[in-house]
Amino acid sequence: MEADLRKLRERLAEISDLGRMLFLAGWDQRVNMPMLGGPARAEALATLGRIAHEKFVDGEIGTLLERLSSYEASVEYDSDEASLIRVTRRDWEKARRVPTELRTEMLLAGAQGHQVWVDARANNDFAAFLPTLERNLDLKKRYAECFEWDDSPYTPLLDDFEPLMQTTEVAEVFDTIRPVLAELVRAAPQVDASFLDVSYAPELQRAFAERVLATVGFENGSWRLDPTVHPFCTSFSRRDVRLTTRYQPTGLSSFWSTMHEAGHGLYAHGIGRSLERTPLANAPSLGLNESQSRTWENLVARSRPFWSCWYEPLQEAFPEQLGSTDFDAFMAAINRAEPGLIRVEADETTYSLHIILRFDLERRLIEETLAPKDVPEAWNAGMRELLGVHVPDDARGVLQDVHWSSGGIGYFPTYALGNVISLQIWSVVQEAIPDIDAQLESGELEGLSGWLGENLYSLGRKFTPKETIERLTGSPVIDPQPYLAYLRDKLSALSAGA
Amino acid sequence: MEADLRKLRERLAEISDLGRMLFLAGWDQRVNMPMLGGPARAEALATLGRIAHEKFVDGEIGTLLERLSSYEASVEYDSDEASLIRVTRRDWEKARRVPTELRTEMLLAGAQGHQVWVDARANNDFAAFLPTLERNLDLKKRYAECFEWDDSPYTPLLDDFEPLMQTTEVAEVFDTIRPVLAELVRAAPQVDASFLDVSYAPELQRAFAERVLATVGFENGSWRLDPTVHPFCTSFSRRDVRLTTRYQPTGLSSFWSTMHEAGHGLYAHGIGRSLERTPLANAPSLGLNESQSRTWENLVARSRPFWSCWYEPLQEAFPEQLGSTDFDAFMAAINRAEPGLIRVEADETTYSLHIILRFDLERRLIEETLAPKDVPEAWNAGMRELLGVHVPDDARGVLQDVHWSSGGIGYFPTYALGNVISLQIWSVVQEAIPDIDAQLESGELEGLSGWLGENLYSLGRKFTPKETIERLTGSPVIDPQPYLAYLRDKLSALSAGA
Repeated sequence: MEADLRKLRERLAEISDLGRMLFLAGWDQRVNMPMLGGPARAEALATLGRIAHEKFVDGEIGTLLERLSSYEASVEYDSDEASLIRVTRRDWEKARRVPTELRTEMLLAGAQGHQVWVDARANNDFAAFLPTLERNLDLKKRYAECFEWDDSPYTPLLDDFEPLMQTTEVAEVFDTIRPVLAELVRAAPQVDASFLDVSYAPELQRAFAERVLATVGFENGSWRLDPTVHPFCTSFSRRDVRLTTRYQPTGLSSFWSTMHEAGHGLYAHGIGRSLERTPLANAPSLGLNESQSRTWENLVARSRPFWSCWYEPLQEAFPEQLGSTDFDAFMAAINRAEPGLIRVEADETTYSLHIILRFDLERRLIEETLAPKDVPEAWNAGMRELLGVHVPDDARGVLQDVHWSSGGIGYFPTYALGNVISLQIWSVVQEAIPDIDAQLESGELEGLSGWLGENLYSLGRKFTPKETIERLTGSPVIDPQPYLAYLRDKLSALSAGA
Repeated sequence: MEADLRKLRERLAEISDLGRMLFLAGWDQRVNMPMLGGPARAEALATLGRIAHEKFVDGEIGTLLERLSSYEASVEYDSDEASLIRVTRRDWEKARRVPTELRTEMLLAGAQGHQVWVDARANNDFAAFLPTLERNLDLKKRYAECFEWDDSPYTPLLDDFEPLMQTTEVAEVFDTIRPVLAELVRAAPQVDASFLDVSYAPELQRAFAERVLATVGFENGSWRLDPTVHPFCTSFSRRDVRLTTRYQPTGLSSFWSTMHEAGHGLYAHGIGRSLERTPLANAPSLGLNESQSRTWENLVARSRPFWSCWYEPLQEAFPEQLGSTDFDAFMAAINRAEPGLIRVEADETTYSLHIILRFDLERRLIEETLAPKDVPEAWNAGMRELLGVHVPDDARGVLQDVHWSSGGIGYFPTYALGNVISLQIWSVVQEAIPDIDAQLESGELEGLSGWLGENLYSLGRKFTPKETIERLTGSPVIDPQPYLAYLRDKLSALSAGA
């Protein structure tokens, strides 16, 4: 048994190493790579991805998993060993169901679709994008057919990002939050944020963000922050975390974007040491991962306690822009709700409505109750209904997001689930750290990151998303009430102030 | 045949892609990686290296090479196809001779030795380094035993860096240049270079270097320049070239270091397009590669024609430091000969003497006519004899270089061979581009890089080092006379000016 387990670990470590190099190649591509390096990078990424996949679906891993069944049953469910065997088995069985030819075609279509989308968006030309969308949908439907499902062919797609979640469960959560959010947005007060609409020097934005990042709980020498076009976070080990951000010449949005990526980074940084080089060295789902980026971006970095510590330093960094803006006006501006066209620029209250629209369209496309050619019309109607905004063109409408171009269908819901879950976990944090507000007020963030590290991040993927949520909250249910209560409180505070 | 060739190309492309990722991982490690990322990076590098090796020594490649023998004989020796089969066969036969266990132990010893060396050098403690040196020498002797050799067990080690070169050939070249260099150094005039011993702002050094680099012949969007601790150049394809440099707060040495790496970079950038993703996408030897870094560093960037174009811009960038230094004084300073302790700081004239010492010691160590424990004494005696300098401690003596710590024995000679070969090729350049001086004077560098690209860089590893030299110069012999004549002229011009 021990020899088998050691052999399994060796095989998985090798695949994990290949994964690290794939992430590095992706990071470099988006942060450093000279423009003309693209084609060779694509070849190398494809080769590395193929080798990693071949090594994983290999029959030997299946044999080892088979032979380790009785051992798995003999050790604690919670142990690293049982979790490793259990989670690897599910991954392996999923991976084996997909013919290599389909997987290759999906990768290829995704890679080719990206440039088509870039051009289509630049030219506001949905017709040019339509064949790509149709091809990706077709491939995703074939992918879904590789699996069994009860409620919707959308469920196997969702499963790649939110394992073991049913489409109907997502719909239930979204049906609960949709009317409340829409009503909150309608009733939200107008807030003056004109002082955020002026020039903020990027190098000063960077210096301020790095000052805050130095306090959030990363070990020194385990992370870095670089500028990029579309911010993201990746990591090659728990001690090699790469945050990226985009400094806008106007406004401070980069700060919250940086804190968002720092949340992802803290998750990666907190993964248990014993899980390194295994498939468990990750978050259990994108929703849980996103819950933590949202926690650090919003629950921390838009909160009164946080800014009662950091607003003075911010004013000192930007005396011309903020010197005459009082604390309450700043707090109102960074917490305001304002319907807009673009998801990635959306505020905390409107954000999930953008997601609900995308989920609804994706599901109908996969269930074939909406034709791809009719998506722009449905999009525009949805934006009117949900957010009360008029979409002037497809570039600022249906073509705004990258996901569909590369076949990332089933991904969007995780953003809104993350918002919801972040508040469920935050409720627990508030009980576990009763003086959390006082800590934030004194600039003490490591109490929070330490608690989250110990109780959430360190678990990695040992448990399913629901098991993980249950360990924290006592219930496996995704409950939107704390989230809705939080937004209600936020907006009534705004109204009271306005 | 076509199917076999296609299959061979596919296998080699896969290995080449793994190599690209290995280079990227190495570049990132030295340019970006947070300090604590080291252990995970070492694991990933080891895994990738092992997979690439396993895929290369695989029996299938041997079978394909075997089956392609008659095809190889039926096509032109110079064709890409014949070269690919021929060069791959030699690589494959070499790789197959080394037991995996020995290869793994060498990699491990190299990786472990590095940190031992860093500490030993910092503490000026040769005794602490001695076991590492002994272990690496022992492994290298075992490695040499995997091969046949006529003249010295050093020859198989040399072969890894300078294929098909005999130890006795190197000794012959070095025996010719040693007395001439020693005499030139003894007779060299004192030159005032105090204006290079003052502060030069790194950001201005960078701006000037990038201005020059923009003219040397890189396609836009195919390269970048980053700061690092020990400068190097790497590339992940001909259109993704990474130069690195180190900005010293004092002096302009970074400029020549950058031009040196640009020479390596131009070689990589000029490799023939049809050779990409094959083992031919490289220089035929380190000596030939180094000949080009030396060409751009010295023959171009220390020449009067080059600076008659660029000295004014340099003075404008550094008016305080150079405003009152006339052109001749600057030229004398950057071309002076001055014995010193440290190889990487050595000038053009003394540099090869540092190498000759190392070659002599390495050879005696491998031939077992010198015991490892006696190396410091031999080092210090050699420095006195060759350069007339007294070595005050081992940190500035035998411990100064990284190579022996990681097992890189056989590497040093290529530096001096590069110096020699650079002048053989330069003689041909002067015939082929009769107005080369006028071109350099007018800041036109692309004539030179274009000619070198077409006649040398584009060939990649299609031919052996000697075949390559013969194609350029008409003779396969490594002839030190042009090199010696160049240094004699340089120093007599200095003496005339002094």
